[in-house]
Order: sequence, then C-alpha cells, then structure tokens
Amino acid sequence: MDGQMRQDFTTLAEFSEILQTLPEVDAQAVAAAQARDGQLTKPPGSLGRLEDLAAWYCGWRGDSQPMIERPQIVIFAGNHGVTAQGVSAFPPEVTVQMVANFQAGGAAVNQLAKVAGAQMDVQALELDRPTADMTQGPAMREDEVVTALQAGWQAVDSKADLLVVGEMGIGNTTAASAIALAVFGGDAGEWTGRGTGVDGEALHHKAEVVARAVAANSACKSNGLEALRCLGGRELAAMAGAMVRARLLRIPLILDGFICSSAAACLEVAQPGALDHAVAGHLSAEGGHAKLLKYLKKEPLLVLNMRLGEGSGAALAINILKGALACHSGMSTFAEAGVSDGG
Amino acid sequence: MDGQMRQDFTTLAEFSEILQTLPEVDAQAVAAAQARDGQLTKPPGSLGRLEDLAAWYCGWRGDSQPMIERPQIVIFAGNHGVTAQGVSAFPPEVTVQMVANFQAGGAAVNQLAKVAGAQMDVQALELDRPTADMTQGPAMREDEVVTALQAGWQAVDSKADLLVVGEMGIGNTTAASAIALAVFGGDAGEWTGRGTGVDGEALHHKAEVVARAVAANSACKSNGLEALRCLGGRELAAMAGAMVRARLLRIPLILDGFICSSAAACLEVAQPGALDHAVAGHLSAEGGHAKLLKYLKKEPLLVLNMRLGEGSGAALAINILKGALACHSGMSTFAEAGVSDGG
Repeated sequence: MDGQMRQDFTTLAEFSEILQTLPEVDAQAVAAAQARDGQLTKPPGSLGRLEDLAAWYCGWRGDSQPMIERPQIVIFAGNHGVTAQGVSAFPPEVTVQMVANFQAGGAAVNQLAKVAGAQMDVQALELDRPTADMTQGPAMREDEVVTALQAGWQAVDSKADLLVVGEMGIGNTTAASAIALAVFGGDAGEWTGRGTGVDGEALHHKAEVVARAVAANSACKSNGLEALRCLGGRELAAMAGAMVRARLLRIPLILDGFICSSAAACLEVAQPGALDHAVAGHLSAEGGHAKLLKYLKKEPLLVLNMRLGEGSGAALAINILKGALACHSGMSTFAEAGVSDGG
Repeated sequence: MDGQMRQDFTTLAEFSEILQTLPEVDAQAVAAAQARDGQLTKPPGSLGRLEDLAAWYCGWRGDSQPMIERPQIVIFAGNHGVTAQGVSAFPPEVTVQMVANFQAGGAAVNQLAKVAGAQMDVQALELDRPTADMTQGPAMREDEVVTALQAGWQAVDSKADLLVVGEMGIGNTTAASAIALAVFGGDAGEWTGRGTGVDGEALHHKAEVVARAVAANSACKSNGLEALRCLGGRELAAMAGAMVRARLLRIPLILDGFICSSAAACLEVAQPGALDHAVAGHLSAEGGHAKLLKYLKKEPLLVLNMRLGEGSGAALAINILKGALACHSGMSTFAEAGVSDGG
C-alpha cells in the first residue's frame, strides 16, 4: 500500500484522496513498548498517563525505545477579511507585527520553544492579501486553500520527531468558531469565545458574525475541507496541511488550542481517525475548546487556563511528552538495576 | 527581623521557633512582575496560570524578572519498621536497591531531571536502621527526627533557584496515611491508598495498620511536628527540613505527591502559611492526595494519574514553571517589539 500512497496534491480532491490512505499506527511497536514498560524499575502503572503516551508515541514512530530529540514548532500567520466586521480587540496590522516579533524571538512561543529545545519556524502567508470576508461568501477559492495546504505540507521538517503547529492571525478565532459551527452544528454563541479580549456586546456581535458566515456559505457544511476553504484562513489550512504531512512522515503531533483544533476538526470530519497521530496539548480557556476536544476525542495534557494561540499550549506540553519518552526509553529494567520486582 | 531569625536547630522546639519567624513573599516584587506582565506582547491574561505562577515566583525570589536556571531535585530514602506489618507489595530491601538505581541514573526521576535540566542529589538516611514500628509506639525519638530534619536542611543547595524534594522508602505511603489521619482526622480508609500496588484484602489490612499506628501514638495529634516524629519516616522528616530551609533561602518549592504532601502538611498544621513558597506539582493517583491538596489549598499543575513518588510528578512540573518564567522574563514588551496593543 505504501508505494501507492499519493505524496502530493494540486487539488482538494487529491488532498482528500491522501486522507483516505493514511498510514496507521504500528501495533507491533506499541506491543513491544508495553512489554518494555512492564520491566521498568517502577510499580506497574505508576507513571500513569506517561506510560500511555510513551506507547502511543512508539507506535507512531515504529520504534519501541525512541527518545524525542528534534521537536519542531511551525507558526503560520494569515490575515482575515472578516476583520472588516469588527470582531477583534486588536487591529489587523498586529498580525504582521507579531510575525516580526516571532522572527526577533520576542513572543511567548519563542520562550517556550527554548525551554522545550525545539526548532521554531515562522511562515507568513500572503499577509498583504487577506482572505475574503466570509460573511459575503467563501474566504478562499480552491487554488488559494490548496496553496495554503501546500505551504503547511512543505513546512514540516522530515527529520523532526515531534510537531507543533501554531498560528497568528487577527480575526482567526472568528474563523475557527465558524468552522466548528459548520462541521458540528449547534448555536453560534456556544462556539464563540473572547479571542484576544472581546466581551459583552462585542462578543454578542462576534457570534452574530459567525452565524452569518456559516449562513453565507452553503458549501461549508458539505464536508470538512469545504468548511476549511469557505471559513478558514490561510494559516488554518496550512496547519491542516502540516498535520497530514506529519502523519505520512510518522511524526507525532501535539494540537494547540481552539484554532488549531478547529483546523484538525476539518480533517477529522473529512476522514475519521485522521488525527490519531495527535494528542491535545492543553485545554484552552477559549470558549468552545472543551467541546471541540470532546468531538475530537482528545484528553488535554495541560489545563492552565491559557488562551494565547501561537502554539503556546502545545509547546509547553512538548516537555511532558519528552519526559514520558525519557522515562520509557531511559529507565533501567528490574534485571538491569538488580531491583526486586513486586511479583 | 531577618537578623534575629534562627538559622539552625538542635531540638524540635528550636525547629518550631524557626517556623514562627518565616520570611514572607516580597509584595513589591509581585507588583513589579504584574506591571511587567501587562506590557508583554500578548492579550492580557492570555497566558492564564503561567502569569500567576510567574508573579508568585518573582515574589519569592524578590526579583521582578528572573529566570529558572538552577533547579535542584533531592531524593531522600528511609526504611520503615512498619513494613513488619506487611503493608507493601515490595520487600523493604527495594529501598536500598532503588537508591543504587538513583545513583546509577536508572530511575524515572533521573530521566525527568535530565529533561528539566535539574541537578539531582540522593540522600540515603540510615537505611540499615529502620524507624521503629509505629503500631507499637513512636517511629522516632526526638533526636532521630531532628537528625533527619537536619539532613534535609543541609541538603538544599543555597544556589538553587527552584527545589523539588522526593522520596523512596518501602512502607512510606503507610506512614503518610497515618500522618494525614492524625493531623486532619477522618477515617483511616479514606487516607489509605494502593501505594506500590496493594489492593483488596491487603488494602483493607493497610488501613487497619494506619488506624492502629495513630491509636498507638497519643502525642501524634498534639501538633504537626509530633505527628512527623511519631508516624513519619526519616525521609519524610528530611523533606520537611528541606522545605523550611528553602523558605529561608527564598527558593520556591514544587511539592510532589501524597508522601511529600503529608510531610508538608505537618509543617502547614504546625504553622499555617509555612508552605506559601510551594506549589503542588501534580495530583497523584494515590488515594487521599486530592484531599490532602485541598487541606493545603494547593491546585495541582499536572493531573496525569502518576503515583510513583521519587519526586517524579514535581520534576515533570519543573518545566511548566520554567516556561512561565521564560515567558515572563524573556518576552518583548509592546513598546520593544513595535506591536500595537489592544488599548
């Protein structure tokens, strides 16, 4: 099968074909990892979720004793026509200013990348050409969303052994809320959160914009990739492209908050199981994220009331996974250490 | 005041005097940290709990812009006469075997120390001389508990900027349960957990041993330090000594799981606020820990179903604090980065 899998795409239909032939977890590596775990110098089960994370990671890497040594964080930035509707507490020029801040090393995610020992890359996606205002019709044409998916696809370092995708884009919590509403239904209000800091009447207005965007795009409910095209921004599409490329490269993925999870949801709806190579890095304080994670069947690693985006929650979770694998692959067995086991 | 504070002790009464004159948080450093936070290139509040952790850490360090660069993990090991009552799934010789494993770098906490960039020290406390069986009377005489407190006191590296204290000691969840029962009351069963892996009838027996230990030591309910002497092991007393020394050195502390928290509880009961320089690293899966943290008024940083001890949960939490301070002290301000703020 592997030899026949499509490795590139120039249309959404071709991208969709890739989703239908994704590689699966290596069950033998999972079993070998679980067998090793039982021999380590600790009471069985005493590392709790770290043990499950280690087995899951081993399965995706196809290796029963790996370490995490080359995590990569990629931040995608995009601008959104929907900001014309007055949905953000910050002006749209902040997107390009923050890209400069990422490049200069001054943002939160830069500091968290250092603590995690992660490579950090930033991709600004045509910031001078915002997506169309989704309340008036599709945010992107097919060629535009495909270009953004390809940008994400190409941004993944094939030598990375763990991936975090993050985003920056004034207006993009509005896009994410519209996607969640389109693919999971419900009420616009329950999917709409404070973003960078709107509340009261402004939050009510934002929810109304979200509802109008979904109403203005009949195609967006037809499937996840159409939702991404009609309601997403370039940075959301790029994240989705990077997530799928990571799957093909067997690079495990940590999801960030609400926006990242909404991009993931487009894939999961298009192809159930498409995010099996991902864990949720954290539960964001952004309204709607808990519900989104429930639909994605992901239990967050961290719950710290963060709601910054930029991949920051996922970046902070890198060291949890590093710790899990360091224990799994670095600990001595009972036999090696001459420790009596409990049996 | 500082000049008059007692800096050493040779009796429990002198140790108790130290508890009554502990240094407090530097409110000016907290305020300066909060002012800085408002200028950083992120929406206000968007780093959630990381912002609170940073301000708390700044307050204890007396510095509005510090980094965490020298975390120290100290593991104390002790043996327990109460193992004669058959309370553990592992034989008591595992304590000395695990000390060798720590020294050789093969235990879980060794791997987590590496991921956290932490110095790791191990102190074996008279392993060939277990404490007395607490079901027959006090586990330690006053001179013994003072010696153990002093061992912890001296183990803290004055140059450390963050401290984790951990433990190893077959039988020590039984000691910790007895302490919790003595100082907080309730029923032995609700404080008694599986430890290294007892369940069913063995767990019932363990709870019964806990109840008998508290009944056999009338002094243990009189105050926290007597509970530590009568029911604790040397490693619990050493952890308590290290916690207080860290306070005097203004070194913030991360508490580990059930056993570490029970040592902390002895101090908190003896002197409310004695643990203000501490955060809870994680919520352990060991029965009783959630309740203990509630009494200590600590919200855990991590909830990962771990129950290993060794300082492992706290060690894993080091990087959360490192991340919080890296963001706080390393990020650019709006003015530095030329980013428009939301105001």
